Amino acid sequence: MRVFIAGVDGYLGWSLAKHLGARGHEVGGADIFYRRNWVEEMGSWSATPISPMGDRLKAFRERVGGELSFWEGDLREYDFVERVLREFQPDAIVHLGECPSAPYSMIDVHHAVFVQTNNIVSTFNLLFAMRDTRPKAHLVKLGTMGEYGTPNVDIPEGFFEIDYRGRRDRMVFPRNAGSWYHWSKVHGSHNVMFACNIWNLRATDVMQGVVFGTRFDEGETDERLMTRLDFDQAFGTSVNRFCCQAVIGHPLTPFGRGHQRRGFLPLRDSMQCLTLVLENPPREGEYRVMNQFEEVYDITELARKVRRVGDELGLDVTVRNLENPRIELEEHHYNPDHQNLRDLGYKPTHDVEAEMRIMLRDLLKYRDRIAAKRDVLIPDVRWSGRRAKVRSLELGTASKGE
Amino acid sequence: MRVFIAGVDGYLGWSLAKHLGARGHEVGGADIFYRRNWVEEMGSWSATPISPMGDRLKAFRERVGGELSFWEGDLREYDFVERVLREFQPDAIVHLGECPSAPYSMIDVHHAVFVQTNNIVSTFNLLFAMRDTRPKAHLVKLGTMGEYGTPNVDIPEGFFEIDYRGRRDRMVFPRNAGSWYHWSKVHGSHNVMFACNIWNLRATDVMQGVVFGTRFDEGETDERLMTRLDFDQAFGTSVNRFCCQAVIGHPLTPFGRGHQRRGFLPLRDSMQCLTLVLENPPREGEYRVMNQFEEVYDITELARKVRRVGDELGLDVTVRNLENPRIELEEHHYNPDHQNLRDLGYKPTHDVEAEMRIMLRDLLKYRDRIAAKRDVLIPDVRWSGRRAKVRSLELGTASKGE
Repeated sequence: MRVFIAGVDGYLGWSLAKHLGARGHEVGGADIFYRRNWVEEMGSWSATPISPMGDRLKAFRERVGGELSFWEGDLREYDFVERVLREFQPDAIVHLGECPSAPYSMIDVHHAVFVQTNNIVSTFNLLFAMRDTRPKAHLVKLGTMGEYGTPNVDIPEGFFEIDYRGRRDRMVFPRNAGSWYHWSKVHGSHNVMFACNIWNLRATDVMQGVVFGTRFDEGETDERLMTRLDFDQAFGTSVNRFCCQAVIGHPLTPFGRGHQRRGFLPLRDSMQCLTLVLENPPREGEYRVMNQFEEVYDITELARKVRRVGDELGLDVTVRNLENPRIELEEHHYNPDHQNLRDLGYKPTHDVEAEMRIMLRDLLKYRDRIAAKRDVLIPDVRWSGRRAKVRSLELGTASKGE
Repeated sequence: MRVFIAGVDGYLGWSLAKHLGARGHEVGGADIFYRRNWVEEMGSWSATPISPMGDRLKAFRERVGGELSFWEGDLREYDFVERVLREFQPDAIVHLGECPSAPYSMIDVHHAVFVQTNNIVSTFNLLFAMRDTRPKAHLVKLGTMGEYGTPNVDIPEGFFEIDYRGRRDRMVFPRNAGSWYHWSKVHGSHNVMFACNIWNLRATDVMQGVVFGTRFDEGETDERLMTRLDFDQAFGTSVNRFCCQAVIGHPLTPFGRGHQRRGFLPLRDSMQCLTLVLENPPREGEYRVMNQFEEVYDITELARKVRRVGDELGLDVTVRNLENPRIELEEHHYNPDHQNLRDLGYKPTHDVEAEMRIMLRDLLKYRDRIAAKRDVLIPDVRWSGRRAKVRSLELGTASKGE
């Protein structure tokens, strides 16, 4: 299969290119390296050293095999997107070219505008270019579990049947996102759904949980092939950040009382799931939604797991709850379905601590890179709009000594 | 009250400025005259001759009384929006500055991108500028009944209580819009709701039905004060277009079998409702939704009313169904609530034919302006992406001779 990855230089994009290449798929991709710039703007860099694209492509050729066709350009430029699809003729397009950060979108009006317009326009360009050049291709759009928020009812996969005042319909499950970024994903989901309805395109909208992990390829030792791993407040997701904190002796920092529950999955599971989605496309005109995560965890539970694994490795790991810079429920019902991917054959990892062990071992090699930027570990972007570092929380006895 | 109208040069914006001015409110507004350009781009102009803003302001001063403070500028420029709010210090902001056309948004990728980004960015700029300069002001955001689509269940006003797998929650009622424009309104509604949640802003989101009418001020004879009235495929709404067709002897042109049902309201009712909303603001932090229409009508029923009134006035009015350029259900359940505005005191007009009589009389004066652009009465923008004039439909006997 010919798979085009929009955003191939990113955390998931680069991993997916390698994973699909190793499975014998023909891979192409585009990027303009914004992610590298955004992380630099946040005062940070990837914990893992990442190579320039030229070196990545060379290493791909040498170690993965085959050519990765690469186009440098901005997905917000329609002519660029259309040209690339005409040239590469993909059977599937994976849209990993959106700006994926909630805090980045909450910095100020310019960041809010940038994140929503970047994400909406890049999706539009892919949809129209698909319609006009590759109408039978399969679009895999990355959404997020965060689109749903934390309603007081169970969360189905995208749609639900309702009875309302004596009548029935199958409807979109209402979204209730928690940041301008998360709303951009809701907007994108709606746009993709509508495009499938009117143009008979096929798409899978992946409501992805929080991904963590440094790799999916244990055997790989070529540093040029490593994917990025962020630990700054904007682009570092929680478990990745906890692991980076652990290796430099910084306390792990759950926000608030730390009982937010979210769906999480290791990077290897994300690769497994995206591959299953690609290799089992929907029918023409179908817009399908898959909730993609291994299991729901409480954030404090994950911090404790990192501490336990860190202790094994001789690290002295502590946990320190911080004032929550976000506006979100810290205790809530959370029971999202995630059967669709299992029906396609997804076998969840289930051994999260083994994954964390791999991560900590990888990250120990780069502790100096993390320590050099330790300032970025404490957030200052607040949902209120004020910008100020959050402070440690004094929690009641119930949470002490965790 | 000091009311700022974003988009004060438009169909509703100009009407509202006059209506509020006449009620003694202090009115300010901004515009960059895009609506005039868009209609020109569609090969058309307003059926009613509209004056340049300088003349409008002069006439406002002379006939309505008081000053209308006007700023020329682009709502997509944050610095402009913030400066205007600082200078005018409004108690309420009415956002009529979005691009309001479904067909315009469906022309091609560039129009889709323009409409969604224009509407999202202008709304963002107003929200952030409110937060930072007028956090107690009341935002009145124009949404559209089209956000809901035509679900097979009744449509509440924005939210509904659901029981799902044994648990309950109050949730956003799922949206299912029918064009990139309508989706831009959904995206905007979601963004406004979120801003109210995190910043304690107050907003009313008006899910407006299809507005028709040439005026709300029968006595007014000063042509400089007339509001625009569009009849082209993109900016002319159905009843306005039917009335323009009637005065030049062009058949009225419902799309498809013409049994789409929608909420409609005369321009005078729109003014009455928006004024009630402004004079009865929500509490701080409240995001409330009002479905705003007088009654649900079948589009063919409205065409027949126009024909009946046209016949009275000696016009020879025929009806000719056209191929539907849109992708939409033509027969469907439609039962939206509209109690919230009645609870505030809205007294619906109910005499739609009287309204049409006023319209036809007004438009007869401008039949030459309409006839000069009669080409724009038949649509060629299709939801499929293809651009080609739609043809007449041969309907079965059931619909013949209507």
